[in-house]
Amino acid sequence: MGTLIRRATPADAPQILAFIRALAAYERAPEAAVATEEDLLRDGFGPRPFFDCLIAEHDGRPAGFALFFYNYSTWRGRPGIYLEDLFVLPELRGKGIGKALLQRVAAVALEQGCQRLQWQVLDWNTPAIDFYRAMGGEFLDEWRNVRVSGEAIARLAQTEVAQ
Amino acid sequence: MGTLIRRATPADAPQILAFIRALAAYERAPEAAVATEEDLLRDGFGPRPFFDCLIAEHDGRPAGFALFFYNYSTWRGRPGIYLEDLFVLPELRGKGIGKALLQRVAAVALEQGCQRLQWQVLDWNTPAIDFYRAMGGEFLDEWRNVRVSGEAIARLAQTEVAQ
Repeated sequence: MGTLIRRATPADAPQILAFIRALAAYERAPEAAVATEEDLLRDGFGPRPFFDCLIAEHDGRPAGFALFFYNYSTWRGRPGIYLEDLFVLPELRGKGIGKALLQRVAAVALEQGCQRLQWQVLDWNTPAIDFYRAMGGEFLDEWRNVRVSGEAIARLAQTEVAQ
Repeated sequence: MGTLIRRATPADAPQILAFIRALAAYERAPEAAVATEEDLLRDGFGPRPFFDCLIAEHDGRPAGFALFFYNYSTWRGRPGIYLEDLFVLPELRGKGIGKALLQRVAAVALEQGCQRLQWQVLDWNTPAIDFYRAMGGEFLDEWRNVRVSGEAIARLAQTEVAQ
């Protein structure tokens, strides 16, 4: 039956959450995946969707997913796609399923007039890095990622400004 | 008169574009900023906005801007804010204007229930790196940024998949 890529539906929320947790475990941060099914239903399938999701099926069973949303390049003056998660079950790797997911995301980017498709990879994840390079990915190692999280956002928001 | 932070309006498009070009020049890529006023009006102020923008005024004159949009953390199950651009005119630095912009973005993140505020910085931009660290930023140097751009997106989308 091979591989089929389709849009996720609300009924996929439990499967998407299972994939998210499996990916977090692979990325050595299982405790970080605190999202719930309710979160995914509200934020992916409600009146204000924050992401789109594709499901890969292999021989009729869920095999992996790609979850993405839109960003914006002020240099290009065009939206782009940011790929938050790409995951294939370990026992189903090497069958082209990840490639099929990435190709479908690239097709969505083309349809939407996006000139960039971007994502991140952990620096020790050599198989993924090799795969992304083979898929045409360039590595933007001059850019460092900065984050303010949780309580630090509140502290930053409330700091007095000297004027 | 001090510093005032306000939402951008369509009338700000020429000023926003001037800031974008000045930032690209500072980031040593002036030729990369090919966006037009029409792009910004369509994508920031039309029926489907891809970004939000804040303008800083100092003593009644435009002094800088912050341009951002929403991303999504599948680990947290919550939207976050991605800060694409933060810029203050060189002659007006050191007056707390960048800090005031970043604080306002943090306040928007709080209002929207975002648990993360994220952005990128060039690895040679030491003044910005020091500033971001002072603002509570943590550096996620384990993550590498990958991009597929322009024609490479079309090549990726059109590749045949072996099944």
